Amino acid sequence: MSQYKQGELLKNIQYPKDIKILPQSSLPQLCKELREYIVDVLSENPGHLASSLGTVELTVALHYLFDVPNDTLIWDVGHQAYAHKVLTGRKESFPSIRSFKGISGFPRRDESPYDCFGTGHSSTSISASLGMAIADSLRGDKQDNCHIAVIGDGSMTGGMAFEALNHAGTSDSNLLIILNDNGISIDKQVGALSRYLTRITISAKYNRLKNKIWNMLGGNTLSFSKHKNLFRKILLATKYVFSGKSTFFEALNIRYFGPIDGNDVDDLIKTLRSLKHIKGAKILHIITKKGKGLSQAEQNPTTYHAPGTFNSKTGEIEHKQTTAAVAPKFQDVFGETMIDLATMDKRVVGITPAMLSGCSLDKMMKVFPERTFDVGIAEEHAVTLSAGMAANGLVPFCNIYSSFMQRAYDQIIHDVCLQKLHVVLCLDRAGLVGQDGATHHGAFDLAYLRSIPNIIVAAPMNEIQLRNMLFTALNTDSPFAIRYPRGNGFNTQWEKDMTLIPIGSGEKLTDEQHQAKVAVLSLGTIGNNVQQAIAKLQEANIHIAHYNYLFLKPLNKTLTDQAMTDYQTIVTIEDGVIAGGFGSAIAEYAADMGYKNRIIRLGLPDHFIEHGSVEQLQAICKIDVEGIVNTLTNLQ
Amino acid sequence: MSQYKQGELLKNIQYPKDIKILPQSSLPQLCKELREYIVDVLSENPGHLASSLGTVELTVALHYLFDVPNDTLIWDVGHQAYAHKVLTGRKESFPSIRSFKGISGFPRRDESPYDCFGTGHSSTSISASLGMAIADSLRGDKQDNCHIAVIGDGSMTGGMAFEALNHAGTSDSNLLIILNDNGISIDKQVGALSRYLTRITISAKYNRLKNKIWNMLGGNTLSFSKHKNLFRKILLATKYVFSGKSTFFEALNIRYFGPIDGNDVDDLIKTLRSLKHIKGAKILHIITKKGKGLSQAEQNPTTYHAPGTFNSKTGEIEHKQTTAAVAPKFQDVFGETMIDLATMDKRVVGITPAMLSGCSLDKMMKVFPERTFDVGIAEEHAVTLSAGMAANGLVPFCNIYSSFMQRAYDQIIHDVCLQKLHVVLCLDRAGLVGQDGATHHGAFDLAYLRSIPNIIVAAPMNEIQLRNMLFTALNTDSPFAIRYPRGNGFNTQWEKDMTLIPIGSGEKLTDEQHQAKVAVLSLGTIGNNVQQAIAKLQEANIHIAHYNYLFLKPLNKTLTDQAMTDYQTIVTIEDGVIAGGFGSAIAEYAADMGYKNRIIRLGLPDHFIEHGSVEQLQAICKIDVEGIVNTLTNLQ
Repeated sequence: MSQYKQGELLKNIQYPKDIKILPQSSLPQLCKELREYIVDVLSENPGHLASSLGTVELTVALHYLFDVPNDTLIWDVGHQAYAHKVLTGRKESFPSIRSFKGISGFPRRDESPYDCFGTGHSSTSISASLGMAIADSLRGDKQDNCHIAVIGDGSMTGGMAFEALNHAGTSDSNLLIILNDNGISIDKQVGALSRYLTRITISAKYNRLKNKIWNMLGGNTLSFSKHKNLFRKILLATKYVFSGKSTFFEALNIRYFGPIDGNDVDDLIKTLRSLKHIKGAKILHIITKKGKGLSQAEQNPTTYHAPGTFNSKTGEIEHKQTTAAVAPKFQDVFGETMIDLATMDKRVVGITPAMLSGCSLDKMMKVFPERTFDVGIAEEHAVTLSAGMAANGLVPFCNIYSSFMQRAYDQIIHDVCLQKLHVVLCLDRAGLVGQDGATHHGAFDLAYLRSIPNIIVAAPMNEIQLRNMLFTALNTDSPFAIRYPRGNGFNTQWEKDMTLIPIGSGEKLTDEQHQAKVAVLSLGTIGNNVQQAIAKLQEANIHIAHYNYLFLKPLNKTLTDQAMTDYQTIVTIEDGVIAGGFGSAIAEYAADMGYKNRIIRLGLPDHFIEHGSVEQLQAICKIDVEGIVNTLTNLQ
Repeated sequence: MSQYKQGELLKNIQYPKDIKILPQSSLPQLCKELREYIVDVLSENPGHLASSLGTVELTVALHYLFDVPNDTLIWDVGHQAYAHKVLTGRKESFPSIRSFKGISGFPRRDESPYDCFGTGHSSTSISASLGMAIADSLRGDKQDNCHIAVIGDGSMTGGMAFEALNHAGTSDSNLLIILNDNGISIDKQVGALSRYLTRITISAKYNRLKNKIWNMLGGNTLSFSKHKNLFRKILLATKYVFSGKSTFFEALNIRYFGPIDGNDVDDLIKTLRSLKHIKGAKILHIITKKGKGLSQAEQNPTTYHAPGTFNSKTGEIEHKQTTAAVAPKFQDVFGETMIDLATMDKRVVGITPAMLSGCSLDKMMKVFPERTFDVGIAEEHAVTLSAGMAANGLVPFCNIYSSFMQRAYDQIIHDVCLQKLHVVLCLDRAGLVGQDGATHHGAFDLAYLRSIPNIIVAAPMNEIQLRNMLFTALNTDSPFAIRYPRGNGFNTQWEKDMTLIPIGSGEKLTDEQHQAKVAVLSLGTIGNNVQQAIAKLQEANIHIAHYNYLFLKPLNKTLTDQAMTDYQTIVTIEDGVIAGGFGSAIAEYAADMGYKNRIIRLGLPDHFIEHGSVEQLQAICKIDVEGIVNTLTNLQ
């Protein structure tokens, strides 16, 4: 049994069936115990706190009323599904969340049958739920099942959610979309839809007004005989404006209900119980408080989105004390450098789709608010918006996490590169990201960017190179992608004057005296593991040459010729998929030039990598220091 | 001067400045002449006819009133921009449209400054226009310029259009979105938004009703003194329902105007003139007739979307007479085979995002309407919907043109492959597509699919193999991609019993007696060029071995070992980008195994390929028969 304290009710709950037998009156207490358990566990085992606290009542209500997985339940994005995990057979393993070999921080089909559909990226839940609904309907054996998608107001701005709504509105499937509206995704929610939701929430109070008018006019006994029908029509029309009914969703032929208090379990159960029997596509708008129940999290939901360890009683976040100076995060080097670039060149603008603090563009937002754009969860729009800006003379730096940039792959090709527009794509969280796991690793960017014509693809090895690369990108009139990892860098002295990096350049870092038999060719920050491995081997008097490539594209041919000529064995290393990236580029070049060197390619193998610390995951890919040492030792 | 007859007004027009000096009363005549010119030219030089006929009046009105390119004008998708091309310096070159070295069938920035932003794929125009508007506003020198996006009701369903609306609604940019509503994209328009647009169009007639009510109640002199304000509020609310004002767009804080007749140039000019002076984001809803002015095209807009050559007087489409039996189109083999698969297995469903006739899924729709889904322009939704269907027991065949599949790249990774769901992705129009050019070539699919774990990637060499591959995909419980080209196949006898193709298999087609020095390894239909080249060389007594790979992934190692062992020189060939695809897979494998063969990789070079016939484009890539002959001859 889990070492964390469980309340009297929670103690007896392993699966939803254990909730269903409780009297409804005890559910508020269960919610309280569940929330305490989540806070307790996460205070020592970091995870997505605030989102999951907001959905406790919803989770209890859904499992109380519905029969998951016969009724399907999809959590959009999925980091709000912790209560769901606790209540569906994973209470005891919950403390292992996000750790290596532990349970995932996101729903996963292969972890539990209660996780009906895996999520991680945003805005997929309505499409997947509709697909499941259509499947159940066509197969005929589960026609009455309900298909539930829980989606945040932030995720609702992602384009594919709208594509799904457009389809759902013409379907007669039993689709229940629960719009979990907390006015925030990670940062404060932006965009017209968000403002609209706020408006209709406020307008709910007009319900009372409408009823007053109706009664005043005699209600159903309305006696203006001549104009009776006209007045009825007017009042019917008025309903949509004054009652808070949503003409936005109803325009798409999706019945709208709400808004209701999503942190009131009784209200939720009452409403869901009646919705259960309404056929067709419908949306329930609930208002929840992100971070609910932990006052610091309620007040600072961005900080408490994933706060790391904290004091479960006071909520205070624990800051590790170190005596040594800590190297900055790559994202902060990006954020600070953006301010410098924007200061020196008024063409510079910054764009992020809903990762304002995540990519540290909030720094630029503070200094240059009119030149910094958070467009909400909208990667496709972010890239084509950038292309439009570039077409009219700005230099947009569009920052999108590597794995989310997959959403904008077509826009990179079609809108940026085909037109050779000067857009700088900044791919944060490239390579292995650690605890967020398979959905979030930036594994594919090197492969998918390399095959696109007209783009420069760069991967700095440290934060000084990142800073200089951003400066270089500003001064190179070309599509330009820069990828760099999550986490901290390696230098503390990075705030130097910026210098231009020659396009396509690289550097030989070791073996000046040519004592080595083997040369390692690395791209990006993984080169630091190589450096450490070489230092270790040096102690055993094994010499290794190391070439650091700063660019995947254009590939440095001179450096490659030199390595191929001077060393018989070549080892390539990258923290991206092994098929199509840097190692492939080297293998292709060797083939094209007829080099006969032995070539060993290291990188992420051809299967999805799970969650764990970056070090643990690098180890299973054999690109950690020890793995590199072993490979190089075996080649001697 | 163009050989095609030009009316008296059109004769004198080269650029928009020549329109601006005309009296407004002569514009209907100009529209008539413009329409005749387009029909005349396209009757002999095939292109996108019906869309461009629908936008003649809009084009004339926009260039009459606005100052493009200072005011920016973006044509979403762009195949409706022919009148725009004729009126912006390309009247004489218009007959060269879509032909090799001629003008492009889509707007292109490098073709004309009047083409403010290149298009081809759908739903990009609002993002790009907003980017341009923000740029002009920030740069400060063009603050009063107008930024116009012309977008069809079909394109409006694409998710990124919604992402852009969500942003535009919070922007104060001078953005004018013209919603060109013809109720059809290529096939009949589907989805809830489309129904909604029809509804608000019909409701326009309620305008009169509303005015009647208002006047009946005494208009502004309303005398119910006590309840006066309440009644005012009711009437204000009523406005949105009865006047046809769109609460959908206004919910997103975008002012809505219309609908008006988009084929009435006077009405357009009157409305656009007043909108010109309204600041901020606004949308004008116009109703146009696709194919306007050519009665056959009006009646059959799908057939006349791109009809090929036709009689300019009667409109009759010319069908080439041939005596020999013609091999079927690949798309028709797909369509017919889908009926067979759906007949034998009730789990089979077909999904297309708005390419029902383009991919021939209309055949299945006729036989199995309840199992065939046209979801509108919504590639992301189409793939994740398929994943949801597969999760609940169906086997969806999701057909998306190769270049449009780029839009769903993230969904393939995140929703299909990560979860190992049995979705069959059918990539029509793979490889070079010909006249549609750079935006439409299916150049990247091999590269972007190969790096994804868990997926099988197949490329049949002919339509018999396509049919068997579809059958194989149904019987293989795995993510499965099949790519095949536009156009006709090679066999007429394809309707045979279906057989399973072993996963990862391939075949040696020539040089049984091992007389050759060189082996060609090909993937997919380009292998037919190889066959022809080898036959030609055979006449000169040059022997070449030919291996046909039916799968890119998993790569056939046995076949590759055999080729590498038996032949010193290996030539790989594919009709996809040279970086990351089939040739790369072979180069990687050779490197991994330590093969020292000479390897020559043929494919699409690392730049975007323009428009022209497939044969012309293959020639510039040196993958036409002659190019292959030359390469192989030089290797002897």
